Amino acid sequence: MNWEQIEEKLDQLLSQGRHGQLRGALMMLNPVDIAGYMKKLDRERLLLLFRILPKDVSADVFSYMDTDQRQMLVESIADAEISALIDEMFVDDAVDFLEELPANAVKRVLQNTEPKTRAIINQFLKYPENSAGSLMTIEYCEVNQDMNVRDALLSIKQTGVDKETVYTLYMLDSQRHLIGSIPLHKMLVVPEETPLVKLMDPGIISVSTVDDQEVVADTVRKYHLLSIPVVDGEGRMVGIITSDDIMDVIEEENTEDFEKMSGLAPAEEPYFKSRLFTLAGNRLPWLMILMLTSIISGAIISRFEDVLAVNILLSASIPMLMDTGGNCGQQASTLMIRGIALGEVRFTDIFRVLWTEFRVGLMIGVVLSAVTFARLLLLNQASLIMAGVISFSLFATVVIAKSIGCVLPLLAQRIKLDPALAAAPLITTLVDATSLFVFFTIASRFILNA
Amino acid sequence: MNWEQIEEKLDQLLSQGRHGQLRGALMMLNPVDIAGYMKKLDRERLLLLFRILPKDVSADVFSYMDTDQRQMLVESIADAEISALIDEMFVDDAVDFLEELPANAVKRVLQNTEPKTRAIINQFLKYPENSAGSLMTIEYCEVNQDMNVRDALLSIKQTGVDKETVYTLYMLDSQRHLIGSIPLHKMLVVPEETPLVKLMDPGIISVSTVDDQEVVADTVRKYHLLSIPVVDGEGRMVGIITSDDIMDVIEEENTEDFEKMSGLAPAEEPYFKSRLFTLAGNRLPWLMILMLTSIISGAIISRFEDVLAVNILLSASIPMLMDTGGNCGQQASTLMIRGIALGEVRFTDIFRVLWTEFRVGLMIGVVLSAVTFARLLLLNQASLIMAGVISFSLFATVVIAKSIGCVLPLLAQRIKLDPALAAAPLITTLVDATSLFVFFTIASRFILNA
Repeated sequence: MNWEQIEEKLDQLLSQGRHGQLRGALMMLNPVDIAGYMKKLDRERLLLLFRILPKDVSADVFSYMDTDQRQMLVESIADAEISALIDEMFVDDAVDFLEELPANAVKRVLQNTEPKTRAIINQFLKYPENSAGSLMTIEYCEVNQDMNVRDALLSIKQTGVDKETVYTLYMLDSQRHLIGSIPLHKMLVVPEETPLVKLMDPGIISVSTVDDQEVVADTVRKYHLLSIPVVDGEGRMVGIITSDDIMDVIEEENTEDFEKMSGLAPAEEPYFKSRLFTLAGNRLPWLMILMLTSIISGAIISRFEDVLAVNILLSASIPMLMDTGGNCGQQASTLMIRGIALGEVRFTDIFRVLWTEFRVGLMIGVVLSAVTFARLLLLNQASLIMAGVISFSLFATVVIAKSIGCVLPLLAQRIKLDPALAAAPLITTLVDATSLFVFFTIASRFILNA
Repeated sequence: MNWEQIEEKLDQLLSQGRHGQLRGALMMLNPVDIAGYMKKLDRERLLLLFRILPKDVSADVFSYMDTDQRQMLVESIADAEISALIDEMFVDDAVDFLEELPANAVKRVLQNTEPKTRAIINQFLKYPENSAGSLMTIEYCEVNQDMNVRDALLSIKQTGVDKETVYTLYMLDSQRHLIGSIPLHKMLVVPEETPLVKLMDPGIISVSTVDDQEVVADTVRKYHLLSIPVVDGEGRMVGIITSDDIMDVIEEENTEDFEKMSGLAPAEEPYFKSRLFTLAGNRLPWLMILMLTSIISGAIISRFEDVLAVNILLSASIPMLMDTGGNCGQQASTLMIRGIALGEVRFTDIFRVLWTEFRVGLMIGVVLSAVTFARLLLLNQASLIMAGVISFSLFATVVIAKSIGCVLPLLAQRIKLDPALAAAPLITTLVDATSLFVFFTIASRFILNA
């Protein structure tokens, strides 16, 4: 059965009111897909379907639902029902959900949850957004130095920790400081009497509750971890972050870089969920800044009015110079921004990078200006001087653009700005002004005096 | 101890020749960090350190080493030693490594490995690059319908499968078709007599050996999986792909998008490892195409020579129009490219997107052209007609740029081209030409006839 057939079948069962069969059918599906199916349901059917699900599944499905859908559901069910849902959810998912609710609703809902859950969630709500603390979950297995494999397996069985959070056990001392970690698979291939310390990996890789999610993602990716422990200011273990959540963080951080590189304020919501004013508001600030800075390029053109009047070929070359300069700069800056994000390039590499880009610029400049020189002579019947001035300006533009393009992101990072912010739009404007200035200076020197 | 102190200590032990202590110290470190430390060693020390490591650790470290360093090492050790290394490595890592070697070296090295390993690796080398087949590993746990928890735990103990690949068990029928999966954690909280079928999740999510890595990454991310099974053309299970490898795929795919959006051919090597000619060669094709297309904009300017001669303000407005148009187009295309990559926007949404972008363009266009109108009147003492022509052209440019910017990536995807390829550089050129054409048409109509 493909997905459309599955949806059709579910539609049928739902409209026929066969709730038992519907429940059975839903149990065959992944919670992600159930949440996907619910997207197209109206309020009444959504509520019906949701109540048909077994409680543990419904909490899972709820974590995967859209903000809109959750909102709709929350408005339709009693506070007590929401509280029961929160008791079933993983702490990190519950916190994510509560952060969406208006403050008074949070209070009301939390009143009905179990006191323990409430205390934990209140603690979590204090961590800064996008910090390790706000991402972590407290569902993990801790063991101590005196335990052996049998004790550990028993403890898993008793606490009944669910989900993949159980696949790394963390050994803590009496002050709850992290001593080491034990991958569960190592425990399964040794006799049950084996002391855990023998299996322990003492190399501790952890993050702090206040670390940014980007740091967490970089660390997990670097060490190929399934989960990473989170410690508080005093080095005591307080939670873990699992790799499935990290994947979402990686995509989020990449989206943010894409947006910044295109002069967009990072969006909070997916495209179709954003209001028109938000969409326009996210774009306007940079457009305004860049539009105003491009007046500089205009001023340069005005200043050299007499040069422009000599031959229309000079005006006609402006788009080529500006576009090629912008593109060259953008190529260099993109390579730097990615290099910085992936940890391949650092500020201390600045001279090495500059030297590399300078030589790459020379090579590219020679090729592009040779083609342009030939084009101007053969197709546009330009004079030698005219062709020479334009193609040399192009050459200089390429070299300058490559140099500006690679230096700016590194400088931005040095002064703790986001390298992606120094990217394409700003570089284009800078390169435009510089290349036009070089162009007209050369042109006025050689053409007006010729 | 911070990382610098650790490195210093290792340097000391290495230069003093204290191999026992060095081995002990290395065992405290993560293989990723050992590989990181090895980067700065010369050939002799590299070889020494590598031989000090216990065999299973050295294979792990080897998978994390740079291409250069591996090359250096491979040249220094005997084929038999390399073959032993390959026998110790995970199949996916071994295949990655062999793909770097020249063909005759591969043959020589493979001759010395165990026949079973050789057969498997030969099979793997046939999968297309970046396919699920080339990413997968064959180290996973399979179980059958008659087994209970005790049998399964025993089978794990006997095959001694290492690494996180053990955390999901796969149930196959007699034809090796996948029936379902059992997360290991479920087995640990039930009595040992529990039949596995009771714990099995029947919702099968898998990929095919020939699926592209992008499909694999999207699926794993969507369903929050720790590993995903890979099936062959006949639906038989052949391997799994684990989430840690997926994170690298996600970053790779994002880097490719960043590169394409900036008119760069995707790089095979990190920045500093690439040769100058490669760096230049990756950038030249698009630069050349875009430079040649920008001649169209130049031709439009030439054609309207008489309009330009009327007032230098017209020439001076060219950069503003071109830059703002380019930026608006890039913003819209970036949002589409990300939307497509994250599965939020589809080709069927094209009219909805166009309608949204059209209205966003209207809003932004009104604000930007109002500012420009005021600026021209107050600062540049432009005539009402002149200011009107320039700011209306700007308005039209914004609306057109937003529309082109959102439509092109969706069209590209429709005809199976990469949406990222239709992005920034191409859109800039298109928008330039269109906006200049609109500008001059309006200008010649209202200013020449005024």
